[in-house]
Amino acid sequence: MTQTATLEARTQAPTLATLPTPALILDRDRMDRNIARLKGLMDGHGVVLRPHLKTAKSIDAARRFFPDGPGPITVSTLAEAEYFAREGGFTDITYAVGLDPYKAERAARMVADGVDLKITLDTVEQAVSLGEVGATVGACPSAFIEIDCDGHRGGLLPDDPMLIRVARALADCNVPLAGVLTHAGDSYGLNDPEALAQAAEGERAAAVAAAEALRKAGFQCPIVSVGSTPTAHFARNLDGVTEVRAGVFMFFDLVMNGVGVCTTDDIAVSILTTVIGKKPEKGWILVDAGWMAMSRDRGTANQAVDYGYGLVCDVAGNPIPGLIVDQANQEHGILALRKGSGETLPDLAIGTRLRIMPNHACATGAQHEAYEVVANGSPEVIAHWPRMRGW
Amino acid sequence: MTQTATLEARTQAPTLATLPTPALILDRDRMDRNIARLKGLMDGHGVVLRPHLKTAKSIDAARRFFPDGPGPITVSTLAEAEYFAREGGFTDITYAVGLDPYKAERAARMVADGVDLKITLDTVEQAVSLGEVGATVGACPSAFIEIDCDGHRGGLLPDDPMLIRVARALADCNVPLAGVLTHAGDSYGLNDPEALAQAAEGERAAAVAAAEALRKAGFQCPIVSVGSTPTAHFARNLDGVTEVRAGVFMFFDLVMNGVGVCTTDDIAVSILTTVIGKKPEKGWILVDAGWMAMSRDRGTANQAVDYGYGLVCDVAGNPIPGLIVDQANQEHGILALRKGSGETLPDLAIGTRLRIMPNHACATGAQHEAYEVVANGSPEVIAHWPRMRGW
Repeated sequence: MTQTATLEARTQAPTLATLPTPALILDRDRMDRNIARLKGLMDGHGVVLRPHLKTAKSIDAARRFFPDGPGPITVSTLAEAEYFAREGGFTDITYAVGLDPYKAERAARMVADGVDLKITLDTVEQAVSLGEVGATVGACPSAFIEIDCDGHRGGLLPDDPMLIRVARALADCNVPLAGVLTHAGDSYGLNDPEALAQAAEGERAAAVAAAEALRKAGFQCPIVSVGSTPTAHFARNLDGVTEVRAGVFMFFDLVMNGVGVCTTDDIAVSILTTVIGKKPEKGWILVDAGWMAMSRDRGTANQAVDYGYGLVCDVAGNPIPGLIVDQANQEHGILALRKGSGETLPDLAIGTRLRIMPNHACATGAQHEAYEVVANGSPEVIAHWPRMRGW
Repeated sequence: MTQTATLEARTQAPTLATLPTPALILDRDRMDRNIARLKGLMDGHGVVLRPHLKTAKSIDAARRFFPDGPGPITVSTLAEAEYFAREGGFTDITYAVGLDPYKAERAARMVADGVDLKITLDTVEQAVSLGEVGATVGACPSAFIEIDCDGHRGGLLPDDPMLIRVARALADCNVPLAGVLTHAGDSYGLNDPEALAQAAEGERAAAVAAAEALRKAGFQCPIVSVGSTPTAHFARNLDGVTEVRAGVFMFFDLVMNGVGVCTTDDIAVSILTTVIGKKPEKGWILVDAGWMAMSRDRGTANQAVDYGYGLVCDVAGNPIPGLIVDQANQEHGILALRKGSGETLPDLAIGTRLRIMPNHACATGAQHEAYEVVANGSPEVIAHWPRMRGW
């Protein structure tokens, strides 16, 4: 149904004034600039940038990075790996979430189909079950051992004796060791350049220490993979690292603005919305972008500036001083002035179009079927880029 | 990709042990019981129950309520209205979100196609723009005037003189008046039976007062529509009300458990997940259901019991004492004991299957393409019910 409606609108050359709302808008120029910026930083360090496509989930977006494939890319689900491989021709893929025994066969079949798939694990059990599947299928992904650099999630500490035991189990089971992989997830909670540089150094040091421990024990450790959007931008030294992963940097968002990795001028995604009601006595404007369009992510709630469910901009993308999405129901957003903003509520007629910058590009993007792409400051929609979803 | 994988699994008769995870599981027996319970209450009051299908977004689920259509149903987007009308044969539909001028034409075309679509508005501008569109298309939805019963969102107070002006504008523009519609959204914040009964009475009284004001001014007001899941279950008297709307009651969730409308034994939806890692020294178990599978909804955060991102159950659906999804990354859930639970962390092997009850069924459901349906306490998946999305 929605697709039909969208196609009908498309024959009339859609613009920001005519698209059905709510809709996910992507500013291609900003995205290209964000990609070029991080690519330039990584080139300076002499390391490979392996973008994490869990944010974009779009072959068209990935093509701005790799016009002809084949990667390297990172994914967060096997469904993403299959989508980018089969539909996009991407073959150098790291699946950066711990493998469970049920997914091992699906992963092995991708390798049998010619994909250089690398998976992630941190236990002997996972190594053994992957080895068994590899023997049955006749093809096996290589495996990263996940390293814990900041206590954020999973992985082994670099000096954990289990590291060598897992490497040995991989060797015993004929599973190639891809290397070590870590992610400084706690860096999302920082906002000071010095602390961010220290988080980057902690991430680097943990991965390199683990790689050295493996090599000292006689194992090859070809890839030393680190990364998060904040640490990738604040790293001063990446000695010993071979590649960096980052995802949200392509689009940026209000959380990354709060961390200090970008400004709101860098945020490439926004939600186009329409005013559907007013409650001036309460200081409210109602729009048709609720949490179904924005997601329930409240990532700025613990930052210095809390943007509610998003920062409200005019249809051209310029922030309206002080105006945020203060509350969200499923299909209603309630706009109000941020407490202490000292601004005056604008008088917006029903039907006014606005754009809302999201707290978290990964979460907001996931609520939508496709990107409506704009460029060159024009309101014209120049492309419709589908997104994938599922597992 | 996901669909292909799902189809492959399907030829092998999927069960809770073999489904790819994460997956959205629907217990059909619980849903049927929840439907029968509210239907029985409404029959007792002598009012029509018009279920809000923004929660289920599934024709198959709607058919458990109306095996042969045509409704009455409520929807939250025009895409839902089109889906239920064109693909499901539902023709008695209320679109319960304020109409904007851009959507008016699409709504009018549905009426031209034979759907009895009722829309919602609360301003003269909306009435005028709808009337113009109706004249152009040659068909026009009837309009509810939205009433504000608790300051929760939009709508006019019952004694606002604007009520009569909007009704007059509708008449002048040849838009039929469907009636008045209100929603006691603030009832979600309550947890005391007496306060809930008062919220229900406030909702009823506001709608009936508005209907009487319209009738006194000479307008027909055929439908007096109220509803929220909490007030629908706690209403003692519905005199003057003709119909009740509710959505989440079909599935229930942890927020509704906290409000006191259901128990965890009534919750019909859960997320099937697999253990992918462990951090016993931190008291953590890692699973493959992160916020992409659960949503970012933290609706129990302000209730008496905070379930984090969900209540963890064994694969049969029995809650594991004290175990919740304490943190969520995109594709990682971190299970831990709820503070003060006094329980011991279970030792779960990698590959263990679990089910997680969600905070908010509407938000969690929206993260998934389909329901995997179970019944009779069996682990066998007896049906695959697609969900719709978009606007």
